[in-house]
Amino acid sequence: MSSPYTLLKKDPTSRARAGTVQTRRGAIETPIFMPVGTQATVKAVSPDELYALGAQIILGNTYHLHVRPGEDLIKDLGGLHHFMQWDRSILTDSGGFQVFSLARLRKITEEGVHFQNHLDGTPTFISPEVSMQIQHNLGSDIVMAFDECPPYPCEHEAMKTSLERTLRWAKRCKEYWNCQSEFPNQERPPLVFGIVQGGSHDDLRKLSAEALVEIGFDGYAVGGVSVGEPEPEMMQAIDASIPYLPDNAPRYAMGLGTPPQMVEMVARGIDMFDCVLPTRLARNGTAFTKHGTLNLKNAPFARDTAPIEEGCTCPACQKFTRAYLRHLVKAEEILGLRLISLHNLHFYLNLMRQTRQAILEERFDVFRKEFVTGYVAHHP
Amino acid sequence: MSSPYTLLKKDPTSRARAGTVQTRRGAIETPIFMPVGTQATVKAVSPDELYALGAQIILGNTYHLHVRPGEDLIKDLGGLHHFMQWDRSILTDSGGFQVFSLARLRKITEEGVHFQNHLDGTPTFISPEVSMQIQHNLGSDIVMAFDECPPYPCEHEAMKTSLERTLRWAKRCKEYWNCQSEFPNQERPPLVFGIVQGGSHDDLRKLSAEALVEIGFDGYAVGGVSVGEPEPEMMQAIDASIPYLPDNAPRYAMGLGTPPQMVEMVARGIDMFDCVLPTRLARNGTAFTKHGTLNLKNAPFARDTAPIEEGCTCPACQKFTRAYLRHLVKAEEILGLRLISLHNLHFYLNLMRQTRQAILEERFDVFRKEFVTGYVAHHP
Repeated sequence: MSSPYTLLKKDPTSRARAGTVQTRRGAIETPIFMPVGTQATVKAVSPDELYALGAQIILGNTYHLHVRPGEDLIKDLGGLHHFMQWDRSILTDSGGFQVFSLARLRKITEEGVHFQNHLDGTPTFISPEVSMQIQHNLGSDIVMAFDECPPYPCEHEAMKTSLERTLRWAKRCKEYWNCQSEFPNQERPPLVFGIVQGGSHDDLRKLSAEALVEIGFDGYAVGGVSVGEPEPEMMQAIDASIPYLPDNAPRYAMGLGTPPQMVEMVARGIDMFDCVLPTRLARNGTAFTKHGTLNLKNAPFARDTAPIEEGCTCPACQKFTRAYLRHLVKAEEILGLRLISLHNLHFYLNLMRQTRQAILEERFDVFRKEFVTGYVAHHP
Repeated sequence: MSSPYTLLKKDPTSRARAGTVQTRRGAIETPIFMPVGTQATVKAVSPDELYALGAQIILGNTYHLHVRPGEDLIKDLGGLHHFMQWDRSILTDSGGFQVFSLARLRKITEEGVHFQNHLDGTPTFISPEVSMQIQHNLGSDIVMAFDECPPYPCEHEAMKTSLERTLRWAKRCKEYWNCQSEFPNQERPPLVFGIVQGGSHDDLRKLSAEALVEIGFDGYAVGGVSVGEPEPEMMQAIDASIPYLPDNAPRYAMGLGTPPQMVEMVARGIDMFDCVLPTRLARNGTAFTKHGTLNLKNAPFARDTAPIEEGCTCPACQKFTRAYLRHLVKAEEILGLRLISLHNLHFYLNLMRQTRQAILEERFDVFRKEFVTGYVAHHP
C-alpha cells in the first residue's frame, strides 16, 4: 500500500512535521485544520466563504447525515460534495463518537450498536460495515473506522475489553474496503483511517496503535481525547500513541482543541485537527485572537472601533469594528455570528498555516514558545 | 424647494411611473424595493451581498436603534452608514409605528409619546423633535416624519383626532430641519418625507395628504396600511391618498407587501416599498417565485434537484438545489435561511426592476396582468 503522506520537513526540536496528504481530490497541506460541517454545512458559512478562507478539507458527520437526510438520498443526488457544493476534500467521521454521546443506546454487541437516534428516537443499527457503507455512499475522501468511545474515566479492564472489540471492528472496516473492487468512474478509493483508543492507559494506547498498524491503514487518528479528561492526560494520550504509528502516515487528533493545544499537539506529531470551537464559540459572541479569546458581548467593546484583531485579514476584520460586532451579538443578529464564525475559522486555519510555515522555515521551536506563551488560556 | 424626483416615464393605462429619487448619496431608481435593516443589518445578509443583489437603498429603524445601541453611540462611531459599512442610501422610519406596536405605551400627549421600551422596559420619550434628532444622528438620507399609528380598525372621530395631532407633529418635524442650518462637512440635508394617515376613511386620507402638501415635504408616504385591514381597504387607502399628492414627489407605501400587492400599488402610483416578508419568510423556509411561495420544508422537495426557481440568477439558485435547501431548513442550519433570504431579497428587488423596465418600455399593463394572474395568492 503506497502512503498518501509526503514528509516535507521535520522539526529537530520536537515531533512536529510539515507535509502533504494526498486524497483523491487533491493534496492537503499539513499541519491542517478541518472546519466541521456536521450536517452538510459548516455552521453559518457558505462553501464560497470556505474557499476564500483557504479551507482545503472539511469534516462531515456520518451519524448526523445518516439520521437526516440519509445517505441514500445524498448518494442519489450525487454524493455529499455535490449536495453541498463543496469540491475539495471531505473527511467523514464514523459515527462512533455520536452514537455513544448523542443517541439513546440500546445495546452494544459484537456485531454493532443498536440505538435510538436523538431526533425522533427511530431505532437504528450501525456496525462497522454499515458505517463504511454510509461513508461510501456519502462519497467521503477520508473514511474513519467505526469505533467504540467509552466515556471518561474508564478503568483499565473495561477499556481493554472495549478496545479489543474496537480493534476487531477496525479489521472489519478495513475488510469492507478490500472487498470493494469497483468504484464509480474508476475513481480512486478513499483513504481509510484507523482510530487509536485506550483512554488514559499508556499500555492500551500502545496496544491499540500497534494492532491498527498491523491491520494497516492509510492514516491514524487518536480518538477518545477531549472527552472530559484534564489537559495533561490529553497530551499524555497523544504521547503514548504517536511513537507506535508509522512516520509515513498522517496522524489526526479528533475533536481538538484550543489554539495552544493544537500547536502543542503538532509538537507531539499530529498533522490534522477538527474542532467545533471556532463556530460554536462564535455563536456565543466569542472571538479568537493570538492573545486569547474576546467575549464581544462585554461592555468595554461597545465603542471599540478596532477590528477583532489588528492585522487580521479575515472578512470580519477587514470591514467591521468590535463595536458593530458587539451590537450584532447583543441584538442576536445572524450577521454577528456569521462574521465571528468567519474570523474564528480564519484564525484556526491560519494558525495551522503559520505553524506549517514555521516548520518549513525551521523556526517552529520559537513559534511554538511565542504562541503558547502569548495565548492566555481560556475555558470554553 | 427643488424636487428630488425625476419622472422618466408614465404608464398610460394606470398611475404607474418610472423615475429616480435623488438622495444625498446618489439616485435611486423607482419603483424600488428597500430591504429592511431594522437593527443596523438586513437580517442574515452582509452589505457586500446586498451590493451584489443590486440593493440601492435600505431601511433602518429609528426605534430599534434608539433602544439599542443608541443613536449617540452610532453618531460617535461615524453614523449608521459607517457603523454597518453600507455606503448607499438609508431611509429611516420615524419610530412611530414601533412605538405604537412594540413598546408598552404610557401616555400620548401633544408633546410626544411616553413609553417603556420592549427590551427592558426603560421609560422613554419620543416627540417629533426627538425622532428627527435621532434620525439626524444616525445620518439618515431619507427621514420620515413622526406619526401616530392608530390600530385597525379606527372610527372616524378617533382617527380624525389622531390625524390632526399627527399633522401638527408633521409640521414640527419639518420645522426641525428648517432650523438646522449647519450640516457636517457642508453635506446636503436629508430628504424629509411626510406620512399620510387616515385609516380607511377616504375624506381623512384627502385631508391628511392635502395638509402635508401644504406643509411641503420632499416625498410622501402612505402609512397606516398593512395594519390588519383587508386588501381592498389597503388598496382603497392608496387610491384615496395618491390623487392629492404632487406628481413631482416620490411616494412610498410603508411596510408592504406581497409581490402582487406591490405591482398593484405601482399601478396606483407608488414608487417605493419596504417589507420584512422576504427575510422573515426565509427564516421559516418559505421562498418566493413568480408563481407564488414554496415552503421548502415540504416533503416533495426532499429529492428535488431543481433550484428554487428556474432561470433565477440569485446566489442560492446558481448553486443549490431545493433538496439541499430543504435539508438545511429541516436541520435548522443558518446557511438555509441565509440562502433563502438572498433568494427572496433578489426576488423582491428584481420584481421592482422588472416593473420599472416594463414601465420604461411601455408594456406595464401586460406585465402587471401576467404577473398578478400568474402569482398564486398566499397568506403570510
